[in-house]
Amino acid sequence: MTKRTLLALAALALPFPLLAQHDPAAIQQKALGDDTAYGIVEDLTTEIGPRLAGTEREAAARAWAVERLKAMGFSNVRIEPFDMKTWVRGIETAEITGPFTGKMHISALGNSASTGDTGLEAEVVYFRTLADLQAAPAGSLRGKIAFVSHKMTRTQNGASYGQFGGVRRAGPSLAAQKGAAAIVIRSVGTDYHRNPHTGGTNFPEGVTPIPAAAISIPDAENLERMIARAAKKGEAVKMKLVLTPRQIGTTQSGNVIAEVPGSDPNAGMILVGGHLDSWDLGTGAIDDGAGVAISAAAAKLIMDAGTPKRTIRVVWFGAEEVGLFGGIAYAKKHGAAGHALAMESDFGADRIWQVDFKLPDGTDDLKTRIANALAPLGIGRSNQPAGGGPDVGPTVALGVNAIDLQQDGTDYFDLHHTPDDTLDKIDPKKLQQNVAAWATVLSIVANDPADLLPKGKAGD
Amino acid sequence: MTKRTLLALAALALPFPLLAQHDPAAIQQKALGDDTAYGIVEDLTTEIGPRLAGTEREAAARAWAVERLKAMGFSNVRIEPFDMKTWVRGIETAEITGPFTGKMHISALGNSASTGDTGLEAEVVYFRTLADLQAAPAGSLRGKIAFVSHKMTRTQNGASYGQFGGVRRAGPSLAAQKGAAAIVIRSVGTDYHRNPHTGGTNFPEGVTPIPAAAISIPDAENLERMIARAAKKGEAVKMKLVLTPRQIGTTQSGNVIAEVPGSDPNAGMILVGGHLDSWDLGTGAIDDGAGVAISAAAAKLIMDAGTPKRTIRVVWFGAEEVGLFGGIAYAKKHGAAGHALAMESDFGADRIWQVDFKLPDGTDDLKTRIANALAPLGIGRSNQPAGGGPDVGPTVALGVNAIDLQQDGTDYFDLHHTPDDTLDKIDPKKLQQNVAAWATVLSIVANDPADLLPKGKAGD
Repeated sequence: MTKRTLLALAALALPFPLLAQHDPAAIQQKALGDDTAYGIVEDLTTEIGPRLAGTEREAAARAWAVERLKAMGFSNVRIEPFDMKTWVRGIETAEITGPFTGKMHISALGNSASTGDTGLEAEVVYFRTLADLQAAPAGSLRGKIAFVSHKMTRTQNGASYGQFGGVRRAGPSLAAQKGAAAIVIRSVGTDYHRNPHTGGTNFPEGVTPIPAAAISIPDAENLERMIARAAKKGEAVKMKLVLTPRQIGTTQSGNVIAEVPGSDPNAGMILVGGHLDSWDLGTGAIDDGAGVAISAAAAKLIMDAGTPKRTIRVVWFGAEEVGLFGGIAYAKKHGAAGHALAMESDFGADRIWQVDFKLPDGTDDLKTRIANALAPLGIGRSNQPAGGGPDVGPTVALGVNAIDLQQDGTDYFDLHHTPDDTLDKIDPKKLQQNVAAWATVLSIVANDPADLLPKGKAGD
Repeated sequence: MTKRTLLALAALALPFPLLAQHDPAAIQQKALGDDTAYGIVEDLTTEIGPRLAGTEREAAARAWAVERLKAMGFSNVRIEPFDMKTWVRGIETAEITGPFTGKMHISALGNSASTGDTGLEAEVVYFRTLADLQAAPAGSLRGKIAFVSHKMTRTQNGASYGQFGGVRRAGPSLAAQKGAAAIVIRSVGTDYHRNPHTGGTNFPEGVTPIPAAAISIPDAENLERMIARAAKKGEAVKMKLVLTPRQIGTTQSGNVIAEVPGSDPNAGMILVGGHLDSWDLGTGAIDDGAGVAISAAAAKLIMDAGTPKRTIRVVWFGAEEVGLFGGIAYAKKHGAAGHALAMESDFGADRIWQVDFKLPDGTDDLKTRIANALAPLGIGRSNQPAGGGPDVGPTVALGVNAIDLQQDGTDYFDLHHTPDDTLDKIDPKKLQQNVAAWATVLSIVANDPADLLPKGKAGD
């Protein structure tokens, strides 16, 4: 090799911005062998673990995230803090005290009131559905524990969560308004393990919160059997509840932001992400360690392939689980301006099976190119509009475009908000399929000439 | 119909002992539609629930069992009590205190010592296998918590439990002898849920018991990752353990016995059963509610078909989990005399896939008839000798014949000794296949002319 050749080679390594060489097929192939995303989830779940919104653990996760995103080579890594009202878990036990016996596996719902340290013992009143609770006469639950069951079943697109999640979201305030001393629900889930599913509930202004908790599905079915047997003898089942969660006032949360700067500031940026906070029972692997990992790993693949036309902004949102606080704070601060597209990953780590679009008129060719590029991953195109997900939802609602890469949710509610949301539930190959799909979409949209800037609410 | 015909028909209904009409194929068919066994497990798990050996709950189960077996029509229903030393669970928590954080799902092993109410905080020392712990230098664990992992995998015949169960059975006494302050093991199981697997351990005479507990498999794998990461920085992982079980001294347990009297007292009886006690974390559905239900439901089918030649004795043994105390007490009291055969069900509620024999020479035709009659249930014949199971084992060891109807154990160690051992894990159709196999064997052996009486140790 001559000295001149060596100098020429050295010149190629100079830190000039590379011209984008974004071959979607090549990036997709690279993603299928890339373990960046798995490494992020593994490190986050092992070194940080559960990270309830507004707590010191979520703050530790943010500090970890800043270091990690910087180490990955992203630009403009920063935290955008916001304040929130924070609820934390206490002791939680439940025991049947008559006419049968037995301990139930229970978990308080977010915003549950406390029973006090000495607990609460009361008769259990059974409702098959939320509608049955709604039909109960006013005052009929005074001094009693309402128990609301349901028949949630698994669905690929997670649609059943809309219906049956209502038991958790609305059940407690309904029971409180009917005078109940407390409410216990069948976990909103599809598994059969002694792992209760937590999740947020809300007591509207003027409704005094009551203790509210979920029991595991095996426990719920056992309780139903106990109630039926006791009723035959004209008796009621009694339960002793001890739940000592508390509201700790205003604390700080925040969104962690990192960027792959694009070559054309006028083309609008692509907002991608998931949420960094997690419920406190598991280690937040599928909800939503996977989502932050997928979005960042895909953005890094684009960065490594050379400067894209559009900036890619990765946001790891704070405080999603307890009220979408991070997504709301982001939309309030940044508005729609300058956002060409928003995408979010927050439905586990199973394979992506479908792509949905919310893109302006005149982008049929772009959609077709995306769908064709995703087809080798087994992903089909849908006719339903993209929604964007809970964190980017407030931004999308301002008129920003969205593409949803729908994950298979068939098994998602086996794990959702349970102690079982741990690293071992993630199949590295499926996670790579997610990253490959994301990187494919980003490689196309980040360099596309289409005008994707929001046109205000009229263009929504 | 003439009056004479009516009288003749009425005479047929008189309560004379019916001659046995034991058509194995007909009984098998009836069993496949019989829900007696499921009813027993459902009632036992709902109305009694967990029933730890030697406790008031096991006594409640015995009282329930006597009523149930009488109501089913069995004769000579009685309890044979015995004394035992009893251990009960207390509080149990485990938390990583450095350099990472996180709560672990933990359960004390039977006979574990207490840490005291204030607990114990110490460095964790990791061993990949029991052999690695065994190789640790004497005194090297002083003041530390030994953590022993393993790689148990699922097997159809449960053979892996022999190898990997050693971590639970022998690990604690080994760690104690090496000066460890406590021991934590990876649960001896094959699932990936946050449900620890309890089970008995033993500290031989002269070895002072230490706190000993199992963490769930997701927790064990997370702890391994934490230890590896801490080691890279030259640090050790620290754990805070609170375990407050205690020995409560001598209490009473007992075996519950019920019989289908045979027409020929000299033909020897058939001993069948399972164990009534259960570990305290689940409700004892598959271990061993299923076993007591299968054996009694099969015996009832024979009783309902008419008096058999041989007496069938159903024994629901006490205190199996904590040291086979019921089986040992039974063998001590009754010896081998008068027992033609022993059979036990104590490996869950999955399908029976294989039959093993331990029968005297000259019974090849009997074995072939049994195997042929089981073949329609998908059960194959093996060449390995029957062992009889843990409860009837002490009796079989005295020279009594045995037939094993082997249940498929592929998923058994997902549930074994965990909170997840609940009714919903039982497939009613599979339970019926078990009862059908049992009733088939009983219908043949209970009426067979072969001499099956024990000939002393020489005939063993």
